[in-house]
Amino acid sequence: MNAIKIRDAEGKDMDAVHKLIIELARFEESESAVETSPGNLQQDGYNGSARFKCWVAENEDEIVGMALVYPRYSTWVGPVLHLEDLIVTESNRGLGIGGLLLDVVVKYGHSIGVKRISWEVLDWNEPAIKFYEERGARVMRDWDVVQLDEIGIKKYMERL
Amino acid sequence: MNAIKIRDAEGKDMDAVHKLIIELARFEESESAVETSPGNLQQDGYNGSARFKCWVAENEDEIVGMALVYPRYSTWVGPVLHLEDLIVTESNRGLGIGGLLLDVVVKYGHSIGVKRISWEVLDWNEPAIKFYEERGARVMRDWDVVQLDEIGIKKYMERL
Repeated sequence: MNAIKIRDAEGKDMDAVHKLIIELARFEESESAVETSPGNLQQDGYNGSARFKCWVAENEDEIVGMALVYPRYSTWVGPVLHLEDLIVTESNRGLGIGGLLLDVVVKYGHSIGVKRISWEVLDWNEPAIKFYEERGARVMRDWDVVQLDEIGIKKYMERL
Repeated sequence: MNAIKIRDAEGKDMDAVHKLIIELARFEESESAVETSPGNLQQDGYNGSARFKCWVAENEDEIVGMALVYPRYSTWVGPVLHLEDLIVTESNRGLGIGGLLLDVVVKYGHSIGVKRISWEVLDWNEPAIKFYEERGARVMRDWDVVQLDEIGIKKYMERL
């Protein structure tokens, strides 16, 4: 594991981070749903706005994984940290990199005092679910994600 | 509907908003999971920090509903608005108040240019699911919510 290093991402890492996002979207059979560019990520995370915080995992100085978080708010428990993405490129699975990335996320959440860390998982992604449950997370199978997308928002506005 | 008014919430409304949160938690069989106080909500939303934005619905000047949102970030589409809670007190159901609250949320999301509005729903809450789907939202039944709670964070830290 000596060659593996986790560090804060910088704007210039967003090309590599974007490649990982595309790789995960392909695995989730949703590649065409990725509308952001590396430039968008750089703008939204680093140039002026800080809509998220990101770490990258390097193996021999090559970026092979990432974790991306931002704050949320629960009316039940207060401030929450949300893990939007945790990705390790396929060729680097099984090396413990996902665990190292989750470690840094949980440490960060603990350091800022949140009472919950949340994320979302595909219910057929059993390896991911096993990985999370082994680390103490609860997969709440009775809670579903709901989305009104860009077209949905436009149509909703037209009906008002 | 003339007696119904939707307006921005203020800090002083958090007592009434908290009552609605408790009412929903009871319906979801989770009343004991509510750890926040009205004072927490006032602090987190209005006194210094602005972790969320909230609207209330008034019927004859009494607060009978609320909607609470905050920003999220999608690595696929960019900035997202998240609807954490949309609650109408039981005695005021069927008056169209939920629809008016969702209208103001979607209008706000549209005005700030988000490409997605997201929320979460219990998969057995069929009236809510019907209400959302009628308005163009997609209930993504294959995506589950995952949570590492306060005790989970503590245990995770101890294992590091």
